[in-house]
Amino acid sequence: MNNFEFYSPTRIIFGRDTQKLTGAWVKKYASKILLHYGGGSVKKSGLYDAVAASLKEAGVEFMELGGVSPNPKLSLVYKGIELCRRENIRFILAVGGGSVIDSAKAIAVGVDFKGDVWDLFLGKAQTDKALPVATVLTIPAAGSEASGNSVVTNEETKVKAGYRTMYNRPVFSILNPELCYTLPKEQMANGVCDMMAHLFERYFTRTPNTELTDKFCEGALKTIINNAPKLLKDFKNYDAWAEIMFSGYIAHNGLLGMGRQEDWAPHAIEHAVSALYDVAHGAGLAIIFPAWMRYVYKEDPLIFAQFAVNVWGLSDAVRNPEELALKAIERTEQFFKSLGLPARLSEIGVKKADFAFMAEHGHKYGSQGFFKKLTQGDILKILELAY
Amino acid sequence: MNNFEFYSPTRIIFGRDTQKLTGAWVKKYASKILLHYGGGSVKKSGLYDAVAASLKEAGVEFMELGGVSPNPKLSLVYKGIELCRRENIRFILAVGGGSVIDSAKAIAVGVDFKGDVWDLFLGKAQTDKALPVATVLTIPAAGSEASGNSVVTNEETKVKAGYRTMYNRPVFSILNPELCYTLPKEQMANGVCDMMAHLFERYFTRTPNTELTDKFCEGALKTIINNAPKLLKDFKNYDAWAEIMFSGYIAHNGLLGMGRQEDWAPHAIEHAVSALYDVAHGAGLAIIFPAWMRYVYKEDPLIFAQFAVNVWGLSDAVRNPEELALKAIERTEQFFKSLGLPARLSEIGVKKADFAFMAEHGHKYGSQGFFKKLTQGDILKILELAY
Repeated sequence: MNNFEFYSPTRIIFGRDTQKLTGAWVKKYASKILLHYGGGSVKKSGLYDAVAASLKEAGVEFMELGGVSPNPKLSLVYKGIELCRRENIRFILAVGGGSVIDSAKAIAVGVDFKGDVWDLFLGKAQTDKALPVATVLTIPAAGSEASGNSVVTNEETKVKAGYRTMYNRPVFSILNPELCYTLPKEQMANGVCDMMAHLFERYFTRTPNTELTDKFCEGALKTIINNAPKLLKDFKNYDAWAEIMFSGYIAHNGLLGMGRQEDWAPHAIEHAVSALYDVAHGAGLAIIFPAWMRYVYKEDPLIFAQFAVNVWGLSDAVRNPEELALKAIERTEQFFKSLGLPARLSEIGVKKADFAFMAEHGHKYGSQGFFKKLTQGDILKILELAY
Repeated sequence: MNNFEFYSPTRIIFGRDTQKLTGAWVKKYASKILLHYGGGSVKKSGLYDAVAASLKEAGVEFMELGGVSPNPKLSLVYKGIELCRRENIRFILAVGGGSVIDSAKAIAVGVDFKGDVWDLFLGKAQTDKALPVATVLTIPAAGSEASGNSVVTNEETKVKAGYRTMYNRPVFSILNPELCYTLPKEQMANGVCDMMAHLFERYFTRTPNTELTDKFCEGALKTIINNAPKLLKDFKNYDAWAEIMFSGYIAHNGLLGMGRQEDWAPHAIEHAVSALYDVAHGAGLAIIFPAWMRYVYKEDPLIFAQFAVNVWGLSDAVRNPEELALKAIERTEQFFKSLGLPARLSEIGVKKADFAFMAEHGHKYGSQGFFKKLTQGDILKILELAY
């Protein structure tokens, strides 16, 4: 186990009707806020009205900035920064999924930052200041409700990049599984894949002696695998959504990567894909992750064999770890397919001509990997496998 | 799953040599502190010197209050409160195990409290103020390094009582598994039993649909069960200590009880025992917990059967949950014995004549239970079973 520092102070307010508590919680921090959200779904579902009513009841004044798109755009972040500066707003409430929360965080770090906020994402600058952000989560997926991460796309340069700082962990997040009932089905599948990827990126490590977090990763993966299919049958299964939503939080609040070397290369490769093609992050991961697994598992087949036994319940070929590893990868692919997720880049219209660009960007703006250190050539091969 | 609020903001600084970071971390909060510790062990081990040197290097002035005993005493808490008030100290650093940390927390809530701090523990008063507390942990056991709990004994009235407030969660805790190498062997066993009890008290619930936290409780229990025996063979096995220390933290940082009704009755019964007899809390739990299990398992044999399968790997009698439950309880007893823990109240010199007092106090100052609601008569029967 490696040395580590764990600090994950986001307060999680979880359960039925909790969105009604929004105003009372916000009021502890601010009397005037930016209310940040996406498109029409929060208005159609009635969540916007519930949150607005709760804010008014608590005496919280709010300015609005809607219009966040999936793969949130830098241009809107600039707009939000300007708005907060102009109106002297010192608190941001994000109502939505990971894109809305990431956009809110990017605004939060930008307001007091003297330079161009994009430099933070490009790794050219650092800041130790951020406005407090809180969230009302509508899509269990990105884990942004408790992480210090934000991923934004620069539409002009087509670069999708992330910035991570502890100052960006939300002060509180409201998670009500009932809010998921109105999601499109594919959003559930995308979200499930995203949170499983967050677990994979921690689980597949070369760090030895990580028993507790191994078991927690396995437990969260199994919980997701057990509950997502229940939603396919009954999309208003509260308990299944509760398990999924809790798992999405725990997959990315930091705990499960403690003491182990994480590997974010597959995420970085996906970001390079979704920066060019407007594919949902989770759908992109359903394609990239199994390809990455197939490309790297031979580096340490035993952790994949453990994955096969402890997550997929396979135990017939324990003395042949490579065989077991491949079976587990197959089961993972089948599971993604069963949720209706795409399996191939070709299915979603990605052109091979863009592979070189993707390999370069995945390498440059993301991670080069630890489970297996990846060159641009390796990323090209993974993209080929995923085609 | 029940609605819940999770807030566990303690920063965990974990790993080799981390005690050397104490001064630098304290300095972010205060320049003058109370250094609180127990008997001679921190001096003998060199930890006191290392922490003192680190504080001096960081320019932190410290007053000292040593002498905390196991089952920490109210009289020393009063002394600490007086000292902090007189010297205008606003930060407490606890160097030691759960007793030292609990004592520090009791002082921390007492300093700004106008009345008698003991009234907080008796449930007669509440406070929303506490000095910040930080810890350098020497015994993985109580989980006090991240909890908001403190348990103190009033020597005069023989009442042992707890106070729980979010204001008492330490701001940071330093956990170096190497610091455990010099512990007496029975302290390891006591600690292991205490943290397993913290998991049991969350795991054995009547709340349905708690899959993720079920799996996490099971994962932590298995990790402890796998690693404690390694320490019996090699007391300087860093990786085994790391798993135990991480598990002790996670068993009581709050996460694993989220969304489920916890049941602290066995803890309360043990407190009534150790208030009268100076038995270590963990040793008392090794006696009380299996007796409680035997007394209550019929209320819901299936959760005990799940415990048998998922924690102890027993699967031969799944269609007979009561049989399986009893086997799991037996395995639990055997495990405690294998660590050298006592199994019977008679072994540790407890007199039956005191059962009535214990039953009354366990009932009055603790919890009456949820898995099975306990009367004083029930507690008497559990004590009989444990004799």
